[in-house]
Amino acid sequence: MDYKIKQPIGIFDSGVGGLTVFSEIRKRFPNEDLIYFGDTARVPYGPKSKNTIKEYSIQNTRFLNNFNIKLLIIACNTSSAIAIDDLKQQYDIPIIGVIEPGAAKAVEMTKNGKIGIIGTEGTVNSEAYPNAIKQLKPHMITYSRPCPLFVPLVEEGWQNHVVSCHIAQEYLSPFKKESIDTLVLGCTHYPIIKETIRKTIGNEIFLVDSAEAVAEYLDKYLKTITKDIGKESFFVSDNIEKFRLIASKILQKNIEHIQRVKLGESWYV
Amino acid sequence: MDYKIKQPIGIFDSGVGGLTVFSEIRKRFPNEDLIYFGDTARVPYGPKSKNTIKEYSIQNTRFLNNFNIKLLIIACNTSSAIAIDDLKQQYDIPIIGVIEPGAAKAVEMTKNGKIGIIGTEGTVNSEAYPNAIKQLKPHMITYSRPCPLFVPLVEEGWQNHVVSCHIAQEYLSPFKKESIDTLVLGCTHYPIIKETIRKTIGNEIFLVDSAEAVAEYLDKYLKTITKDIGKESFFVSDNIEKFRLIASKILQKNIEHIQRVKLGESWYV
Repeated sequence: MDYKIKQPIGIFDSGVGGLTVFSEIRKRFPNEDLIYFGDTARVPYGPKSKNTIKEYSIQNTRFLNNFNIKLLIIACNTSSAIAIDDLKQQYDIPIIGVIEPGAAKAVEMTKNGKIGIIGTEGTVNSEAYPNAIKQLKPHMITYSRPCPLFVPLVEEGWQNHVVSCHIAQEYLSPFKKESIDTLVLGCTHYPIIKETIRKTIGNEIFLVDSAEAVAEYLDKYLKTITKDIGKESFFVSDNIEKFRLIASKILQKNIEHIQRVKLGESWYV
Repeated sequence: MDYKIKQPIGIFDSGVGGLTVFSEIRKRFPNEDLIYFGDTARVPYGPKSKNTIKEYSIQNTRFLNNFNIKLLIIACNTSSAIAIDDLKQQYDIPIIGVIEPGAAKAVEMTKNGKIGIIGTEGTVNSEAYPNAIKQLKPHMITYSRPCPLFVPLVEEGWQNHVVSCHIAQEYLSPFKKESIDTLVLGCTHYPIIKETIRKTIGNEIFLVDSAEAVAEYLDKYLKTITKDIGKESFFVSDNIEKFRLIASKILQKNIEHIQRVKLGESWYV
């Protein structure tokens, strides 16, 4: 484990749904400082115009950026679909949305190339998921369906209510005929109603949990940009080769770079 | 795991012995950047005057401090015994020597309060270990014995040679009569000859490996100074209590501090 990190990760969503992303990130990164902003006064973003969504997303990012965040997670499907390119242009920090990780996970998991997508009206209409999926693998076949009642059901705490099962049945049964083998939960609220979705759709279909997918993506991303962690440097004041021989034995590996320095006489003192 | 650490940990020793400390730190902290300086041109420090040892230790620290180290490990018993206070006065970074962790481990492990100490002539004569042990628990009884041939035997690669067994027998047998239950390997070379020491002294006596003790101490130390890692902050633009209710359900814990901010109208935009 490393220490001394003080730069937090910023996460925003239009409301509470992004907390599922927050929760998965916390599980994988117990030591990271996290700052969450939920724009609960202006939720939902889905029905609003593109310009308004961009404006809100920029304001949210500007707010979080005041905290010297090292990385931004857009834990909101609508913002991710519409505003991510503008945000990436305006801000010099790494920015990860929910669409790309979810799409990548779906493409990774599908065997028959038939992927279902559920989300809000806004997300489904944006076609962000089909586009992202086809950018990764053009021959994938996607079927999208909005499930507008899932968000209010979750906000009501009714995710396991019998009513929710009926509604899920109504929304999801068409996917069965389309013989998808993977279903993207394209809304950050949906991991909360996952159990009901699972019961309805059956155990054979892989569910892409966007919150999990983002946390997994973040993990891979951070490992990529920090592959030079754990560097080692060796300096000696006498013969390099003699040191290399003994050091290689003690550390049981080859020591490549050893530099000789003079202390007490020259540059370093 | 955390990322984005760039400040390395500096480690110095008079020669190669400190690599045992380096190795144990690497095991516990795979992601830390480590910089090792072995003062092989001026080794050994043991027989030198206190002033010279202080001067060398200051020069070594100054050299490592050029790399913006976040913490210094003195992986050298002689330097730790003689120069640590001067270094702590002159440098504003945390400094950990080998004596204190070894002494603490011995006090922790002994049951009968009888602790043996082996080291170079210099370390044994400095009485650094007995002093450190008695500072922790005044009633401890210590028996110290120099083992001057162990370092050259290790440097020769003869740590498992039959000759080393004979020498170990000679050095260590008096400890048996003193009925110690703990033996401090008070030299950073000694972990390499540990197997021979173990065979000679028997399985009943706990061996305090100073390299392991330092790495363990470092771990505890870093956890102490960074106990505020993994902080969480929540901001919303609307009603706090409504958010708290849903957030607590989703995250399955109480959310204490939630702040309300206005975006798009006031201070933050």
